[in-house]
Amino acid sequence: MGGAADAAAAVREDRLWQRLMDMAAVGARPDGGVDRPALSMEDAAARSLLASWAREQGFTVSTDPIGNLFVRRAGREAGAPPVLTGSHLDTQPMGGKFDGAYGVMAGFEALQAMNDADIETRRPVELVAWTNEEGSRFQPGCMGSQVFAGALSLEKALGAVDRGGTTAREALAAVLASEPEMAVRDAGLPVHAYVEAHIEQGPVLEEAGLHLGVVTGIQGYRWFAIEVLGAAAHAGTTPRARRRDAFMAAHSMVGALRAIMEDAEDVARFTIGRFEVEPGSPNTVPSRVFFTIDLRHPEQGPLTRLGDAVEPLCRQHAGACEVRVTETFTAAPLVFDARVLDRLRAAAGRQGVPFRELPSGAGHDAAFVAKLAPAGMLFVPCGGGVSHHPDESATPADLATGARVLAEALAELANR
Amino acid sequence: MGGAADAAAAVREDRLWQRLMDMAAVGARPDGGVDRPALSMEDAAARSLLASWAREQGFTVSTDPIGNLFVRRAGREAGAPPVLTGSHLDTQPMGGKFDGAYGVMAGFEALQAMNDADIETRRPVELVAWTNEEGSRFQPGCMGSQVFAGALSLEKALGAVDRGGTTAREALAAVLASEPEMAVRDAGLPVHAYVEAHIEQGPVLEEAGLHLGVVTGIQGYRWFAIEVLGAAAHAGTTPRARRRDAFMAAHSMVGALRAIMEDAEDVARFTIGRFEVEPGSPNTVPSRVFFTIDLRHPEQGPLTRLGDAVEPLCRQHAGACEVRVTETFTAAPLVFDARVLDRLRAAAGRQGVPFRELPSGAGHDAAFVAKLAPAGMLFVPCGGGVSHHPDESATPADLATGARVLAEALAELANR
Repeated sequence: MGGAADAAAAVREDRLWQRLMDMAAVGARPDGGVDRPALSMEDAAARSLLASWAREQGFTVSTDPIGNLFVRRAGREAGAPPVLTGSHLDTQPMGGKFDGAYGVMAGFEALQAMNDADIETRRPVELVAWTNEEGSRFQPGCMGSQVFAGALSLEKALGAVDRGGTTAREALAAVLASEPEMAVRDAGLPVHAYVEAHIEQGPVLEEAGLHLGVVTGIQGYRWFAIEVLGAAAHAGTTPRARRRDAFMAAHSMVGALRAIMEDAEDVARFTIGRFEVEPGSPNTVPSRVFFTIDLRHPEQGPLTRLGDAVEPLCRQHAGACEVRVTETFTAAPLVFDARVLDRLRAAAGRQGVPFRELPSGAGHDAAFVAKLAPAGMLFVPCGGGVSHHPDESATPADLATGARVLAEALAELANR
Repeated sequence: MGGAADAAAAVREDRLWQRLMDMAAVGARPDGGVDRPALSMEDAAARSLLASWAREQGFTVSTDPIGNLFVRRAGREAGAPPVLTGSHLDTQPMGGKFDGAYGVMAGFEALQAMNDADIETRRPVELVAWTNEEGSRFQPGCMGSQVFAGALSLEKALGAVDRGGTTAREALAAVLASEPEMAVRDAGLPVHAYVEAHIEQGPVLEEAGLHLGVVTGIQGYRWFAIEVLGAAAHAGTTPRARRRDAFMAAHSMVGALRAIMEDAEDVARFTIGRFEVEPGSPNTVPSRVFFTIDLRHPEQGPLTRLGDAVEPLCRQHAGACEVRVTETFTAAPLVFDARVLDRLRAAAGRQGVPFRELPSGAGHDAAFVAKLAPAGMLFVPCGGGVSHHPDESATPADLATGARVLAEALAELANR
């Protein structure tokens, strides 16, 4: 009977890669990407594929009221809260092969490696594929993990409607109908610990020449909508001193914001993604500008300080214009559980895999599961930091490295 | 028999105001503005109204191949090139009562005042209503004065097509059909001098508490289109150093441009009226920005210096982005004729009207007539500098002041 290190040794790079490619064929796009919307028939086919692999291995497959799919490898103590790993199978409309799918396939590889190494754990080890992480068909995203963690009511989640008028309730019923024999279990069962593997979706690991990241937390964020109101005027005849130029006022606001947001350490993430000018005529002084701010930071202190400066700085630089600042969304930074991170560090150390500790810039299901149980994440590099795009890429070797560290950490956690 | 000063004295404020209000009823908007597109049936009705007033006064009415409408008050020397005055009767879709119409009505009041004062001039004095100054239905604007001055071919002008697919040729034929008895004369006859009266369309005179402006010239302008190309990226995961953020690059370019364009004298006119960001998602780093620059200056030196700095400054601040700068339009500053301006100054001086000399920020038909004959312009203040808007306003007293100076200057010029 093997130990945690044997689980890592039993991970097979070729098998993991092949499963990722088989999964990427479900909803494949002609450009090499994947289009597998949440609760679509492609999503149903992906779930069935995963369930078929699980049954081959003798694992138990079940679902819960929001459609999260669980694959259970039994432990000695059937009633002990399980160690949970996983991610999601849905993609963006122009998505890639690895975002989400990697965390599910790496978890499955870890479970199969435990079988191959004949490992017995005290606790069950479960793999989960969370429903609708992306949020591109039904809002909000992380729907399955939010319902699981009690952050979103089941009724509200099932009431979400896509652009075609279909509810999540209807779409889920159609997905479940394709696996009528699958057991349905209660929502939100106790979890001992949760580990999610994911591609980085950023360039940090690749640039550092590293093959693994231990994710210390998830950045907090604050979103703002800024409306600047001036007055339209003739571009040829109106002196600057007489203008109430909404564009120039907004430009000054952005200048002041950049001065505080552009930190030397390049940790704060400050993005102006929408910036709309009205009336939008070349020879008319703009009367209105609307722009958004997406501000993120892994630490609460700077996030509070920078975010709280937005409205005063905008007012200070409004000149003759009016400005309205609305904070549209906020989420506190999340710090993952120290003990889970220690297991991940220790496993990487024993396997001789150098790694960097870094916060996640993107949101993940782990952020919600962390409300319920000790949680942590692993990153592997992706090519050029590209994600949410058909060109998303990762190497078989890096993907296997992540799966090995995951397998060892899960096996260890399952014996605590 | 009266002299030039008697022409001024015979100007009647109430009559001028009533004609402006009667003309504003043709194409009146419910909000108090005027919508009288070039070569529309409203334009035809405005022309017929003017022609009927002219015939009552014994003036000769004719048109030319581009539809410019001429009202001629005979002089002693029938063959001498006339002194010409006028402006246009077409408006912007959301236009006011005074832009263009004032120059035509003030000219008509001057001609009628010469009748009332029993003035005989050596040269004929002609009033013109130029076709399609605004350019909002058919492009280019100043169509009638451009054809008259040889700056635009008649064929090209008549070939212009509006949004409904109607050509200027068809629209003009329909307008002329409503006055079938009107004589048609040749294009571009010799002109001795041209004076155009207009509302300022800016706030300078009103702010200075003055009731008259002698317009020294028309600003030159240079228009630019700037395209900034970066790369879309995840707002949460992409460090600043790795971004090719088209918005931030464009913001830096605008900052550098503002630093040189915002002169202490507030003479340069620098407007960014269009600024478009793609893909326009709050949590995606922008991949493309398109913006326009409208730069104007009354002097060639600064216009050249500032305009020539646009491309180098944009390149210098492009950071990791590409930038493409295109100069889309350019017009040299125009300086009006010194002798014509002297007549206007002298007439204002004799009437005891304080005035300011100022350049015109907007383009006018006078810019094209000036290529053919000595030309000048007079401004009267408009409320709040507002123009191209239903709220456009001017006081009866200011409008009459302008008409008096115009009448005296025309009578003087007609005796040279």
